[in-house]
Amino acid sequence: MKNFIFKNPTKIIFGKGSIEKLANEIPKGANVLILYGGGSIKKNGIYEQVKKGLANYEVFEFGGIPANPEYSILLKALDFIKKEKITYLLAVGGGSVIDGTKFLSAAALFKGGDPWKLLSDNIRTEVGMPFGTVLTLPATGSEMNSGAVITRAETKEKLAMGGPGLFPLFSILDPQVVASIPERQLANGLTDAFMHVLEQYMTYPIGALLQDRFAESILQTLVEVAPIIRKDPTNYQAASEFMWSCTMALNGLIQQGVPTDWAVHAIGHELTALFGIDHARTLAIIAPSHYAFNFEDKKEKLAQYAERVWNITQGSIDDKAHAAIKKTVGFFHSLGIDTKLSDYTKAYDGTAEKIVKRFTERGWLGLGEHKNLSPDKVEEIVKMAY
Amino acid sequence: MKNFIFKNPTKIIFGKGSIEKLANEIPKGANVLILYGGGSIKKNGIYEQVKKGLANYEVFEFGGIPANPEYSILLKALDFIKKEKITYLLAVGGGSVIDGTKFLSAAALFKGGDPWKLLSDNIRTEVGMPFGTVLTLPATGSEMNSGAVITRAETKEKLAMGGPGLFPLFSILDPQVVASIPERQLANGLTDAFMHVLEQYMTYPIGALLQDRFAESILQTLVEVAPIIRKDPTNYQAASEFMWSCTMALNGLIQQGVPTDWAVHAIGHELTALFGIDHARTLAIIAPSHYAFNFEDKKEKLAQYAERVWNITQGSIDDKAHAAIKKTVGFFHSLGIDTKLSDYTKAYDGTAEKIVKRFTERGWLGLGEHKNLSPDKVEEIVKMAY
Repeated sequence: MKNFIFKNPTKIIFGKGSIEKLANEIPKGANVLILYGGGSIKKNGIYEQVKKGLANYEVFEFGGIPANPEYSILLKALDFIKKEKITYLLAVGGGSVIDGTKFLSAAALFKGGDPWKLLSDNIRTEVGMPFGTVLTLPATGSEMNSGAVITRAETKEKLAMGGPGLFPLFSILDPQVVASIPERQLANGLTDAFMHVLEQYMTYPIGALLQDRFAESILQTLVEVAPIIRKDPTNYQAASEFMWSCTMALNGLIQQGVPTDWAVHAIGHELTALFGIDHARTLAIIAPSHYAFNFEDKKEKLAQYAERVWNITQGSIDDKAHAAIKKTVGFFHSLGIDTKLSDYTKAYDGTAEKIVKRFTERGWLGLGEHKNLSPDKVEEIVKMAY
Repeated sequence: MKNFIFKNPTKIIFGKGSIEKLANEIPKGANVLILYGGGSIKKNGIYEQVKKGLANYEVFEFGGIPANPEYSILLKALDFIKKEKITYLLAVGGGSVIDGTKFLSAAALFKGGDPWKLLSDNIRTEVGMPFGTVLTLPATGSEMNSGAVITRAETKEKLAMGGPGLFPLFSILDPQVVASIPERQLANGLTDAFMHVLEQYMTYPIGALLQDRFAESILQTLVEVAPIIRKDPTNYQAASEFMWSCTMALNGLIQQGVPTDWAVHAIGHELTALFGIDHARTLAIIAPSHYAFNFEDKKEKLAQYAERVWNITQGSIDDKAHAAIKKTVGFFHSLGIDTKLSDYTKAYDGTAEKIVKRFTERGWLGLGEHKNLSPDKVEEIVKMAY
């Protein structure tokens, strides 16, 4: 295992009816801003539960944070926070609302001028405005980590930020919310969590026995519950496992002491920025080509994954590794997720070149666990994914 | 999954050479008391590394905390803390030193009179004196949880305490310390961690897919590394897996949302109090009889454990469950750990009755995951373990 430092102070309040516990977590006298997305929380009853939980607080609201939280909209929320002297943020939503809230937590206390610098200069936030979350859509793991990804439509950019000051103080996870999530979002959530694990696992063996097994545990659980939830999202037991798996997939635990990849995310973000394709789907587009292109580097782990997650015990390492890629594609297809760029847009010509140009401009010259995925290799991977 | 609340804010600093990072963690100007055990840290170089790391602090020392940290000795440390106006505690040791330090962290700020009340009345500590740890013996998981067990020789009692104020602020885990651990302690550590997992896992199935797999991951890893470490404790990779597995076995994660047992610990503590048998060994004495006695309640999980940890795929549920108990006993024997009380003492007659009397006096009338293990059943289990 490599050396690591791990600390995750987020308090998780998990289970049926846990939204009721909201008032225990927010200091009396706080000026609370509730942040949410397109308003689905007003249809599924979550909004009412949150308002009831906050009955004794001064509460403001800011709705309309879109998927891929948009910088220009967040700036409006930032103005609101300053104008109304907000002291506590409460994200009620999925990864986009939580990520947007993290940006606001950082920006509200940022003394360095233009808040875009938090993203363009990747400034670590040591202390942010306190915030909690009520998770409505399991997927990104943002409810128990300190990172965020923000989109800026104006420049078609999608950049990451973070820092130890951006862990939610608490996150409320009530698996009952899964019942009202549309099929498309459920499929995205399953894919997103699955790919989060693969980015931290599908590298090369270093003998990290426990970390590998934890990663495989999450993958196995997602594979097991996916068909149950897709058939019946009101199945509380499957919803619980799905929700907890998504959180554990990206709360920092499984990445400790092991090499990580994240090239799929780096490339995928560009497909969202260029075409507006759902984040999870961009990962399903890029991952199979990425693993096929880097086959020699990754085949030992692909074969281990084939054995332990997909029960493929026959054949050579190469055979198992190839089968693992097929199984992964098959899993995405089983969720109704297409895995080729041409399934999403007819205007894919030139995409690889555009992405390479951006990476080169940003100085991203070596992605992946070996930091050796140069722009020409990225170009080939994206073209394989057409 | 059952509802749960989980928060674990301890910062883990893991890896080769991590003791050097000590000074980053303790506030400048702190009056630091280093607590340790029998002095092995002065032979294996850890003491020197710690002193070097704390070169710029006012440092005091209190050594001689024994295995099963003894209350009367801790009271002397408490006097010292008050006299020298200590503001920060640093445990350098294994579970006993860390547990003793947790008691002192609580007692130093306790306003309720006699500090024994922290144990006898099981008072939760919300805020303790700040402390960190340098782990020298992987076993108990105390380095990343908020619980402690304290022994009082005078009354032959061994009682638990805890609370959210008793998480170490940081714990330094350098797997190189494993190289100098005596064989007996290594065997105890492996057994202790293994039993910690079983106490949180060997109950009845509730469909907690991910939690079960995490528990099994730790068990599999311990089984895999045990022979490697016993053969060569300088094997850094195996030592790392052993160390991280011990921490993950009892940092709260795998117990969330699932039923837990802990009857083996409750009974085992009495064997330590009565005969001075090493904690881990008391667990190895009680567990097989406990699982055999409660076979009908536990056989589904025993069979699952047989399949996933021991690769026993043939036979009925009963067959697999019986085989699982045998494999567990065999594992302990492979570590040189005896599993019958009569292997440790000839004076075992009347032990069951003594334990039952104590449990009855304390009002412990229903142990285990079903809270139905009444004193008469405890008596039978202990007698089966003679």
